[in-house]
Amino acid sequence: MQVSSPQRLVVIGGDAAGMSAASAAKQTLGDALDVIVLERGRWTSYSACGIPYWVAGDVPSADALVARSPQEHRRRGIDVRVRTEATGIDLDAGRIEARGPRGGTSRIPYDVLMLGTGAVPIRPDLPGAVAEGIFGVQTLEHGAAVLETLQTHQPRRAVVVGGGYIGVEMAEACVRRGLRVTLVDQAEQPMGTLDPELGARIAVAMEGMGIDVRTGVEVTGFDCAAGRVRAVATSEGAIETDLVVLGIGVRPEVRLAADAGLRLGRLGGLRTDASMRCDGRDEVYAAGDCVESWDRIREDWTYVPLGTHANKQGRVAGLSIAGQRARFPGVVATGVTKVCNLEIARAGLTERDAAAAGMDAVAATIETTTTAGYWPTSEPMVLKMVARRSDRRMLGAQIIGHQGAAIRIDTCAMALWSALTVDELVYTDLAYAPPFSSVWDPVQVAARAAVSALD
Amino acid sequence: MQVSSPQRLVVIGGDAAGMSAASAAKQTLGDALDVIVLERGRWTSYSACGIPYWVAGDVPSADALVARSPQEHRRRGIDVRVRTEATGIDLDAGRIEARGPRGGTSRIPYDVLMLGTGAVPIRPDLPGAVAEGIFGVQTLEHGAAVLETLQTHQPRRAVVVGGGYIGVEMAEACVRRGLRVTLVDQAEQPMGTLDPELGARIAVAMEGMGIDVRTGVEVTGFDCAAGRVRAVATSEGAIETDLVVLGIGVRPEVRLAADAGLRLGRLGGLRTDASMRCDGRDEVYAAGDCVESWDRIREDWTYVPLGTHANKQGRVAGLSIAGQRARFPGVVATGVTKVCNLEIARAGLTERDAAAAGMDAVAATIETTTTAGYWPTSEPMVLKMVARRSDRRMLGAQIIGHQGAAIRIDTCAMALWSALTVDELVYTDLAYAPPFSSVWDPVQVAARAAVSALD
Repeated sequence: MQVSSPQRLVVIGGDAAGMSAASAAKQTLGDALDVIVLERGRWTSYSACGIPYWVAGDVPSADALVARSPQEHRRRGIDVRVRTEATGIDLDAGRIEARGPRGGTSRIPYDVLMLGTGAVPIRPDLPGAVAEGIFGVQTLEHGAAVLETLQTHQPRRAVVVGGGYIGVEMAEACVRRGLRVTLVDQAEQPMGTLDPELGARIAVAMEGMGIDVRTGVEVTGFDCAAGRVRAVATSEGAIETDLVVLGIGVRPEVRLAADAGLRLGRLGGLRTDASMRCDGRDEVYAAGDCVESWDRIREDWTYVPLGTHANKQGRVAGLSIAGQRARFPGVVATGVTKVCNLEIARAGLTERDAAAAGMDAVAATIETTTTAGYWPTSEPMVLKMVARRSDRRMLGAQIIGHQGAAIRIDTCAMALWSALTVDELVYTDLAYAPPFSSVWDPVQVAARAAVSALD
Repeated sequence: MQVSSPQRLVVIGGDAAGMSAASAAKQTLGDALDVIVLERGRWTSYSACGIPYWVAGDVPSADALVARSPQEHRRRGIDVRVRTEATGIDLDAGRIEARGPRGGTSRIPYDVLMLGTGAVPIRPDLPGAVAEGIFGVQTLEHGAAVLETLQTHQPRRAVVVGGGYIGVEMAEACVRRGLRVTLVDQAEQPMGTLDPELGARIAVAMEGMGIDVRTGVEVTGFDCAAGRVRAVATSEGAIETDLVVLGIGVRPEVRLAADAGLRLGRLGGLRTDASMRCDGRDEVYAAGDCVESWDRIREDWTYVPLGTHANKQGRVAGLSIAGQRARFPGVVATGVTKVCNLEIARAGLTERDAAAAGMDAVAATIETTTTAGYWPTSEPMVLKMVARRSDRRMLGAQIIGHQGAAIRIDTCAMALWSALTVDELVYTDLAYAPPFSSVWDPVQVAARAAVSALD
């Protein structure tokens, strides 16, 4: 059991997970709990997912991405210390070591510790990888750095390395800023979280937007001049550029936790129970991009660094710390993005995921429209559904299409959540009117196709 | 058990339910089954829900609303007989009496009978209610009649009686055709399938579109000149008009079935089992607007005449007739519509429904946005969620808002389908990216508010 009435909570990391935990705990316990948050950067509670849209110009300023500033949190009684970096955790003593904005080091004791240290962009171990003009995109500071470069260096060309969520979003952002954009991906197709034949359609659509998509290409290094990147060296020759965005993923930021002796999972993140208690300890919690999450479909640990989980896990941690019963029930790996006018979404397992998990699965792909076909704003969409042969359970769905297509993934996510068979999904009661759907909802048309594939 | 291998299926009614049954049975049994469909009108398999949009001009022609014409069905081996009206059912003899396009009467024996007779618009029993210029809107023939009147009589004013789905959709259609529109509703608010405070918002929005909304007003008759309507008499005076649209609901078309001795439910529709077998008989099936459906939440019969159920029930009937195992699992009363740019959706029980069903429920209403608040195309939306106090189960949701709001009802419908508690709904894995959602999805923000209301 946890310490029954903690008096001081120390949170490391002031973004989604950390501040959600701090807020939920403080709101529940009020004056009975002191909450201190140590945040390395300047901002708290911001939408990291919004950074590409800030860079693109869709969002006017960093402030727009900030849900709650340090001042606002302080007004709610939370002692937020920005530009303050935790440098050590002493689990036995129950104490954090931190370096403040003026460089001084302090020791801060805690009754409960909450780790919301997030993730760091993976930087390839290649020549030139630390040159100026090469950016990861994970914090508002990163976004500000990219924007500053756009202003001061007026780049004309950009290379985006990696074709995942951040990669395609930053490719769009650079296109919107008028740059000539090349996307380089080591895989055969971009958006490797989708099956390759859907990735191929995304590649074609991106080419249509003027993005030079080079797949199956390995980055071997970065050519620099005066410490600044000027070309990306690849297995198929150099690509001259003024700016590089790294979109090859992130890894859990767990250095402090690991140094303190907290055990890591196979995927490099912290492991928690459903209350977000860390490594079997009653007084240490973790949430957000630094933890692994339970995959409800594969029934195994997974790593899905997304703001939506960070907020929910943070809230669960905060409520748990405050002595309330709260559980984070796991994920079904729902994800959504867009690149220009192409919407992309997925939930659950792809056909490839299912095979990798050793499941005997069938897949069905349909081409349909977002609304009744005769409706004037009807847009094309492709929906692929995967189902398990043994118990006919829906395993996953992938969608690409135009406006109104991607949000359909929520129907699929809910079906996955409740472990519906594709047979049952066919007959669920989804909304129908011509401006909103075909009479058989696209999800149900796909479910029918999956039923046929199973029969 | 049903007749194990029927040789002749006769279907009465060639729209969604009837043709879905005919198609599913024929596709499964092929040449082993003769399928005869008797359709009173000229069209088959059409989107009745699309009629208001055809009248509005969004859809160019009746043909666009026809998913499959009689000719197309015939090419698939179904003997479709249009302009042919069933006039009697002899259950003991297993025989239908029908009148063909030239007036001759024929007797058609069947092994299995499928009733897809649909619904008829309710016409008030009031003076003048059968005058010319007064229209119900249920079949393509009705839509054609309204359009013909628009062309030949060039009406300038329209009165829509009733503020339900058809009422608000036809009000929009008339606005789009340049008419001055008055909507008269006996209830205190339009859209009586939503709670009244949401209905009030819809009324305000419709007023903003130039529609004169008169609620709490009873229609007492219709003034006519030369057999043509020229004013609607109401409890608050006469409203001059050139055209009247009745949107006061429909009732199951069960005259033939009742005459034949088939038992009706409390709501006036046919009762079937989950295979769509009618009244305990092995050789009679029914589906669509002529049947009552099982409400999974109230665990009672309900009447929801919608094309989506007609298609699904028809398919279940057809598969069952063909000897396959198929079940229609009931409804959660999901509905969606729009009036001009206002989207309206509901699923499950309203607060008023829950009270009427004797359930102790709480409700929470949130005002939010369709996407991240900082996203440029973010639109306002209101979401009301109802939950049961005893077991914290979500009971229903209602949404009004602008583009992208209403489709969220599908998430709610899926939660209702799987009987989720609001607590669980808070932590489900819905898609998040700024162009698609706030980081806490609107549905989850509402679920959190419901949790607070329960605590």
